[in-house]
Amino acid sequence: MPRQIRFNAFDMNCVAHQASGLWRHPRDRSREYNTIRYWTDLAQLLERGTFDGLFIADVLGTYDVYGGTNEAALRNGAQVPVNDPLLLASAMAAVTEHLGFGITAGTAFEHPYPFARRLSTLDHLTNGRIGWNVVTGYLPSAARNMGNDDQMEHDRRYDHADEYLEVLYKLWEGSWEDDAVVVDREAGIFTDPAKVHPIEHHGEWFDVPGIHISEPSPQRTPVIYQAGASPRGVAFAAENAEAIFVAAPSADVLAKTVKRIRDGLEAAGRDRYDAKIYTLVTIVTGATEEDARAKKAEYDQYASTEGALTFTSGWMGVDLSQYDWDEPLGNVQSNAIQSTLQHLKEEAELGREWTVGDLARRNAIGGLGPTIVGSGEQIADELQRWVAEADVDGFNLAYAVAHETWEDVIEHVIPVLRERGIYPESYAPGTLRQKLQGAGDRVKDTHRPARYRVSERAVV
Amino acid sequence: MPRQIRFNAFDMNCVAHQASGLWRHPRDRSREYNTIRYWTDLAQLLERGTFDGLFIADVLGTYDVYGGTNEAALRNGAQVPVNDPLLLASAMAAVTEHLGFGITAGTAFEHPYPFARRLSTLDHLTNGRIGWNVVTGYLPSAARNMGNDDQMEHDRRYDHADEYLEVLYKLWEGSWEDDAVVVDREAGIFTDPAKVHPIEHHGEWFDVPGIHISEPSPQRTPVIYQAGASPRGVAFAAENAEAIFVAAPSADVLAKTVKRIRDGLEAAGRDRYDAKIYTLVTIVTGATEEDARAKKAEYDQYASTEGALTFTSGWMGVDLSQYDWDEPLGNVQSNAIQSTLQHLKEEAELGREWTVGDLARRNAIGGLGPTIVGSGEQIADELQRWVAEADVDGFNLAYAVAHETWEDVIEHVIPVLRERGIYPESYAPGTLRQKLQGAGDRVKDTHRPARYRVSERAVV
Repeated sequence: MPRQIRFNAFDMNCVAHQASGLWRHPRDRSREYNTIRYWTDLAQLLERGTFDGLFIADVLGTYDVYGGTNEAALRNGAQVPVNDPLLLASAMAAVTEHLGFGITAGTAFEHPYPFARRLSTLDHLTNGRIGWNVVTGYLPSAARNMGNDDQMEHDRRYDHADEYLEVLYKLWEGSWEDDAVVVDREAGIFTDPAKVHPIEHHGEWFDVPGIHISEPSPQRTPVIYQAGASPRGVAFAAENAEAIFVAAPSADVLAKTVKRIRDGLEAAGRDRYDAKIYTLVTIVTGATEEDARAKKAEYDQYASTEGALTFTSGWMGVDLSQYDWDEPLGNVQSNAIQSTLQHLKEEAELGREWTVGDLARRNAIGGLGPTIVGSGEQIADELQRWVAEADVDGFNLAYAVAHETWEDVIEHVIPVLRERGIYPESYAPGTLRQKLQGAGDRVKDTHRPARYRVSERAVV
Repeated sequence: MPRQIRFNAFDMNCVAHQASGLWRHPRDRSREYNTIRYWTDLAQLLERGTFDGLFIADVLGTYDVYGGTNEAALRNGAQVPVNDPLLLASAMAAVTEHLGFGITAGTAFEHPYPFARRLSTLDHLTNGRIGWNVVTGYLPSAARNMGNDDQMEHDRRYDHADEYLEVLYKLWEGSWEDDAVVVDREAGIFTDPAKVHPIEHHGEWFDVPGIHISEPSPQRTPVIYQAGASPRGVAFAAENAEAIFVAAPSADVLAKTVKRIRDGLEAAGRDRYDAKIYTLVTIVTGATEEDARAKKAEYDQYASTEGALTFTSGWMGVDLSQYDWDEPLGNVQSNAIQSTLQHLKEEAELGREWTVGDLARRNAIGGLGPTIVGSGEQIADELQRWVAEADVDGFNLAYAVAHETWEDVIEHVIPVLRERGIYPESYAPGTLRQKLQGAGDRVKDTHRPARYRVSERAVV
């Protein structure tokens, strides 16, 4: 069987997630982000397209590197205002049967005890379709509003997250035996107390002596998502993640990242393919190449250069408001910008120097990932090339115009992929984990959470 | 117009909320608490009955006073396992148009910054139908799992909650002006940054310098619920609450509580009726009195004495496992029990002394509130008597058997109340606040949150 391609959709509980300024497009629906209908329509659409899941990003702060304030972010609707992603899941689960939900939440936001219950609750309500995208840090502006002067130092953050996950794994895997809940109506026994165990966690950051307060859900531990690419981030992902989201400007850069991640998985005692890797892509397509190019040109008219600079400044850690838009990128004092410039030159010949404004216009639609424009056949070719060259499992599809971008993919690209036998005709049965890994609803024995199972621990 | 009666339903994300052991009843659906269908069916049912709202209780710990362990609670399914209530709202909102959702969350569980966003998100998604039941404390077992040795001392807890609410009110009322979000597609301005204000809160417990991260929702501040009856609790409710839930064994006890609350409202500069007061009642009804009595007798067969003692021990703070079930209540060393005994004697003549087992059997269905049994006419008479004698606005209806108890009320009681002209035929328009108070979607000028409005603060 030829190598299969998987799709995820990438959105956020705000306007114009990776498409700066495109909330102005007359067909864009992202202004409805604060209604239930926006999300239930989207979930049903993605399920029609046999997407693995919907991945919902999140930040709890504003982008304020650009100009040193949040003014540009507010003016451009650049991921602010932004609402909570967890609260969308039950409405979307009610109107779908198979779609997974990968929801972002930070290990620095909430004590693990109530957080464990939130995810168990969603895993119950979705019948095992919840993934959690683990974020270890947050924007400095979020840290300040949580009463901290700044976020923890990078590697220290991961140590904190390690213990945070340990508490969660003990609660999810190590507290209730599978047959603890008996619901014996004759004997009047709902739960057998002998089969529910306090976790007795006493660590550096957390003391959690008691039992998990939720009964076991279909997956117990939700599918763990991760999106870090630093060395410590990759080590963390290798131990914990079952789906990994990356962004790379080209297939050869991606190939190196993917190899590093798969090597990390092996180093952590897991199979190289135990985590599905999805790379960020924005697809603009239509009935023909010409249609697609016209659509892209039309979208570009609504893109916001200032919005894109606001994001890019935040991502790269440099205040680009100091530069004119026609300043050559080569003059910007920033290692991140200089390394990006190398990729930009490979990506496209401008016939002149790349400027700050060019970078912004390139990032305005699709953020740090590539934007691929073409007919369904052309898109399919390009996706197959990325998979072949980079050993990636699938694509994390951002939108230019919500929900039109995904509708176009379903109409023009998926039929071609199916014709080629490289895209599923329907969903596999079972939970999200079973769909992704095909090896059961629960974590594999080689995966870190399994170390905290009741059966692995000394049971009093 | 004769005095109107309002209904709320009272449930919890677990089995047999106030009906110990009744998860064993063959028609009880509470075992489905961990499915979306249980909640969407319930929401649609309650909307058919023109209920004001569904009030979802919560605890984050187990009842462990009885026997000094959580074993009896687990065995009886006594509010454990219990899932998160907030995550139910969006699914229920998707299938209803008017029903309000009053959801319990503690001020000790989570930092107010992310919590403010959770409730703003729900107020957006429900189009202004969210109420928040403010809980200032929690079970000691919950405190331990949050890394604290015990919960804060009672009055100090309220001081902490006061500041917690101050932060929330500043975020909800004081950060974004009403016309901050302009969505000007021509000018490319989503939000006017000049109309979004950092709250600059610096207090004893919290430092929150920044802006609220959500745009204004229909109600801004959700409808505030409260359920405390201590002097400090009443003062807190008088300042903050718009719906107050109480439980009293008799109408004359209730009358004193209601007067105390309404006096408190006036002392806080509000109208005596600015908070709706609902008292806990369980109704068992049928086509005739005989049917109702037979139904109650059948329910009683499934009640769990041990489960009721587990709850009662927790509520009264005394370990009743020390006593035989036929021990006279008069022998129990507890002021709370002795004061309860006085009410029990007024409530029913046993023809012998009340025992520990009698108290448990009485509390097994309906908890600390009365259980009223009779035909629709008889129930209506009794509810009218309570309203007339106690000046209460309505009733918080627990279930004996889910959802049958509420179905019976809708079938047998509400038509009688409507015939008497004392129950709404349909919903008033607008948000939950508008439906309860009839004075607009936003908090009244005399209500504490209004003090933190943008217009009331020095705007930089």
